Amino acid sequence: MDKKAMTIDLNSQILLDKAEKEGVETMYDRAQGFKNQCGFGLKGICCRNCGMGPCRITPKTPRGICGADEHTIVGRNFARMVAAGTAAHSDHARDIAHTMALSSRDGNYTIKDEVKLINLAKEWDVETEGRDIYDIAHEVADVALMEFGKPHGVARLLKRAPKQRQELWNKLGIEPRAIDREIATIMHSTHIGCTGDIDSLMQMSMRTALADGWVGSMIGTIFSDILFGTPTVRNSEANLGVLEENKVNIILHGHEPSLSEMIVLASEDPELVELAKSVGADGINLAGMCCTGNEVIMRHGVRTAGDFHQQELALVTGAVEAMIVDVQCIFPALPRVADCYHTKFITTSPKAKIAGSTYMEFKEEDAFNIAKDIVRSAVLNFPNRDKSKVLIPEHKASSTVGYSTEAIVGQLDRVVNSQIDPAGTVKPLADCLKSGVLRGAVGVVGCNNAKGVSNLAHTTVMKELIKNDIIVVTTGCGASAAGKFGLLNKDAKKYAGKGLATVCELVDIPPVLHLGSCVDCSRILEVVGETAKYLGMDSSDLPVAGVAPEWMSEKAVAIGTYVVATGIDVYLGIMPPVGGSERAVEILTKEMEDMVGAKFIVEEDPVKLAHKIIEGIEKKRVHFEALVEEKMLQPAEA
Amino acid sequence: MDKKAMTIDLNSQILLDKAEKEGVETMYDRAQGFKNQCGFGLKGICCRNCGMGPCRITPKTPRGICGADEHTIVGRNFARMVAAGTAAHSDHARDIAHTMALSSRDGNYTIKDEVKLINLAKEWDVETEGRDIYDIAHEVADVALMEFGKPHGVARLLKRAPKQRQELWNKLGIEPRAIDREIATIMHSTHIGCTGDIDSLMQMSMRTALADGWVGSMIGTIFSDILFGTPTVRNSEANLGVLEENKVNIILHGHEPSLSEMIVLASEDPELVELAKSVGADGINLAGMCCTGNEVIMRHGVRTAGDFHQQELALVTGAVEAMIVDVQCIFPALPRVADCYHTKFITTSPKAKIAGSTYMEFKEEDAFNIAKDIVRSAVLNFPNRDKSKVLIPEHKASSTVGYSTEAIVGQLDRVVNSQIDPAGTVKPLADCLKSGVLRGAVGVVGCNNAKGVSNLAHTTVMKELIKNDIIVVTTGCGASAAGKFGLLNKDAKKYAGKGLATVCELVDIPPVLHLGSCVDCSRILEVVGETAKYLGMDSSDLPVAGVAPEWMSEKAVAIGTYVVATGIDVYLGIMPPVGGSERAVEILTKEMEDMVGAKFIVEEDPVKLAHKIIEGIEKKRVHFEALVEEKMLQPAEA
Repeated sequence: MDKKAMTIDLNSQILLDKAEKEGVETMYDRAQGFKNQCGFGLKGICCRNCGMGPCRITPKTPRGICGADEHTIVGRNFARMVAAGTAAHSDHARDIAHTMALSSRDGNYTIKDEVKLINLAKEWDVETEGRDIYDIAHEVADVALMEFGKPHGVARLLKRAPKQRQELWNKLGIEPRAIDREIATIMHSTHIGCTGDIDSLMQMSMRTALADGWVGSMIGTIFSDILFGTPTVRNSEANLGVLEENKVNIILHGHEPSLSEMIVLASEDPELVELAKSVGADGINLAGMCCTGNEVIMRHGVRTAGDFHQQELALVTGAVEAMIVDVQCIFPALPRVADCYHTKFITTSPKAKIAGSTYMEFKEEDAFNIAKDIVRSAVLNFPNRDKSKVLIPEHKASSTVGYSTEAIVGQLDRVVNSQIDPAGTVKPLADCLKSGVLRGAVGVVGCNNAKGVSNLAHTTVMKELIKNDIIVVTTGCGASAAGKFGLLNKDAKKYAGKGLATVCELVDIPPVLHLGSCVDCSRILEVVGETAKYLGMDSSDLPVAGVAPEWMSEKAVAIGTYVVATGIDVYLGIMPPVGGSERAVEILTKEMEDMVGAKFIVEEDPVKLAHKIIEGIEKKRVHFEALVEEKMLQPAEA
Repeated sequence: MDKKAMTIDLNSQILLDKAEKEGVETMYDRAQGFKNQCGFGLKGICCRNCGMGPCRITPKTPRGICGADEHTIVGRNFARMVAAGTAAHSDHARDIAHTMALSSRDGNYTIKDEVKLINLAKEWDVETEGRDIYDIAHEVADVALMEFGKPHGVARLLKRAPKQRQELWNKLGIEPRAIDREIATIMHSTHIGCTGDIDSLMQMSMRTALADGWVGSMIGTIFSDILFGTPTVRNSEANLGVLEENKVNIILHGHEPSLSEMIVLASEDPELVELAKSVGADGINLAGMCCTGNEVIMRHGVRTAGDFHQQELALVTGAVEAMIVDVQCIFPALPRVADCYHTKFITTSPKAKIAGSTYMEFKEEDAFNIAKDIVRSAVLNFPNRDKSKVLIPEHKASSTVGYSTEAIVGQLDRVVNSQIDPAGTVKPLADCLKSGVLRGAVGVVGCNNAKGVSNLAHTTVMKELIKNDIIVVTTGCGASAAGKFGLLNKDAKKYAGKGLATVCELVDIPPVLHLGSCVDCSRILEVVGETAKYLGMDSSDLPVAGVAPEWMSEKAVAIGTYVVATGIDVYLGIMPPVGGSERAVEILTKEMEDMVGAKFIVEEDPVKLAHKIIEGIEKKRVHFEALVEEKMLQPAEA
């Protein structure tokens, strides 16, 4: 297969040619080497959980040495993926909570959204009357930190879910306790000689995943909003064309905003801007990548250079002075690419050191100074740029971003008849769903996966959905794809069906709303939960769905599982490694519906995937509309 | 290979014949099916940590799709093994701590070792003066539970290590924080796009493993001693010959004493003993297996039926009414074997449900009643025994067990000249090591592994060591092997060299001391630590070592790593899945020595393994003796 056929991004295609000419290896080369992947691994029936193995299930060896069958092995492997994904999101959130514990009026980190902090404090029974906002912040941070390790009780934030959902979780025994404890329990229960029952493993996976979505990720989002500001609507651009020939280009890649926020500040520091000019540049140009990109575009409009699959290609432009990373989704291949150019590849987190990088440890205690040091080293690298090696491809698209739950509600207020209805609720959204002007709402989230064509499934699914009057919300590399292909632009309403186009017009939004990073999938839970509560329903009653067309990370497995456990169907464009167990497939794609009111659906063809989602939404509408009718005479829950 | 050649246990050989005739599949059958195991898995160079994979390293594909090389992949896999092992031990300890929080004067769980509790309370700054022992117990339990999840600070129990060691851990940045947090950090850092640096992965592995040894396992041991009594010296027997033809045979298998202690009590309940008689039995015969076996033999002298590799064979005797299990090392194959006989296979833990078992959930709150229900169901199963299917092989060996640190010190007091020296110290042991009467002390621990011949490496190594005047301490399935082959018998001094035989004679001990379950490897840390402190040395200065001749579980990987991080060389009889990375092998077998003063040594031939240990001990002695001489003029540290 031609490498260029592995992506639909024109910039990527151009840079793949350049990389080829310059002898630079990229993911696209490596993926071609892995065309024939191990069938046992793909099906999830290879067990390496003890030193007697590895064991793999075949017709001749239907059980591992300990006797574990394909169901136990698939279940264990699935549960460990959920545990790892939960660990990633939650450990990110833990850092943000520790950062809030360090916040101070005149320090590096201040409180930007006092209202959100005070609301959370009240929710958590933290005294707010007559107290300094920083005292409140520190106590709230302490409470949050205990959600990771408290010895007793279940997660506090579960109470944000619709009542019916909370009762169901309780009945099923899947209310998560402390986040880290759930992770430890899965690691224990998947140890040799523990759980040998796939139903139990799937139940544990749901409990742990709920600790991700409703606790870790939600803390990550809320605390980031409190510390760095709740995103508001703003314009920006996306794709590698945002790099600038005459500026010091710095790419922010990774996940945690504690670092990127400080880099944004440092890049605006007059001394450093002056330094950039003194070395011959016109200034400093920050661009984001992956979820750090999503964090900084949501809060600052910092333009997005690209997504997960473009991280190497960004360096192949030859125009990047530094790529600054923290944790997650960072190719360990990057130092090799950086070495082919003048780029400094700077790692900053003790949790994600990478051999061959320049390590400049980021410590929140001295955040701004360290950020300045990092930016300074990027600026001083500008003179090393080899102009003959520079190629910045021209494509980029403009986008409107920043749709936090509050920003969405704010937009919706535009159509509220203030004579009749209160502002600041999800009523307009609920009304659109009820009337069928919007057929439904779908979250298109997740990564890029080398098993498919980069960006193809994301864009195909989004376009089909909006054409069919289904509004799309998006996070992570899904949001980056949407941005690059113009779907975050208000003009994209031209691709939308009549109902959605009208809503976009009236509410003044694009048909695809950027909600943030992958941690911010918690905003999707929030919007769905609020709408369900407003309608007096459970989340499983609404015509909504989640889709991960190009998922690849263990985080995505955790996300998919908590979304299903929340009662929202999840469509996957890539088959997870569970196919080796009929029971696993049965549970995930059928029985979960009986348990939690939602299930997984897998379809690897993007067009078919879109149509399955649309069918699913329409099927949900039948139930939803009946319920709406039934509730017509009941007073709505506030 | 003849199946019977896969074990040196004569009982096992007899029962393998029986199983063969009766068409019962055992681990030995399955192991034969896995003669050719996946080379990528064996070398640790298969990565399944994201959905783009699986990727495996070959000459044509030297890097995974993300760019991870063989070092990163091996390092990630190794770290996750450590995380899982730590989770297993520590989650066990967490349960014991929760049990202590439930203890009460007239409840199911009482305080048996008040002195140990009060000492720990003082160590942890818990007020003891004038307080009820149960108030102290509950507060100490709360403090312990926070060691799993506290947001700040490092583990409390590290302070028990020699000062030099503590300083080293601090310098290397490997002092563990909360146990669960370390597990979560590894799961995060091994997620795609985080750590791509094997040195960092190995450092994290050491930190997490230390959370296992010095925190989780140590809490498990201390709290079990407090609740169930610190083991004292007693006589018992081991091997399948302990099953009795005319009694209700109940096998206790698994790990956590909270359950097994209650079963021991229930089995002595007059009503249930009477019930056994009423169904035609002479009484109730409890026997232990795996680490639960070690727990109950240490505290009650309950005889050991066998080890990890005999769990199926025990049922093949046809004479077992019930096998009661909780967590870890329980073959999911057991329900299939139980189905071939009348045996009830009873699972009890929500953390380890097994398909096909009878599930009777054990809850500490109602422990004794549940234990009685379980024993009752075993007793009532006696009439279902098919006498024509019964074959109890005759071999068993008598043993002396119960060597907690306190019991060892108590024995040592026999040779203290009370005119000169205080009682209750490790001085006699230190003196024996200094004089060279004992050349060294070695812990032989760990599992059975189907990659070798069951029990061969354990017994070979132990016999060679004691022949060379090296005293052996043992835990886990190593201890079971020692028991079965008569090495825990005081008569075994006949196999010992002259020095060790003399010590055994004077101190009245066997040459191989049973210290408990795998969690009780913490007792080895304790004895070594106390001896080092007594001599004013670090643990790495002593002529001691750890050996896992037949290791198989992820727990063993965690144990090996914390033992090395404590400064004690670890010899492995089975190659861990790290051979695919030269750097991994270099770090584990060489560089760790520079970092922490100890390293791993792998040798798969049992005789050669023993000789390498002896050489290692003699090499250590050169350093040790020089240090002793140097310290001659200094006053000893108390």
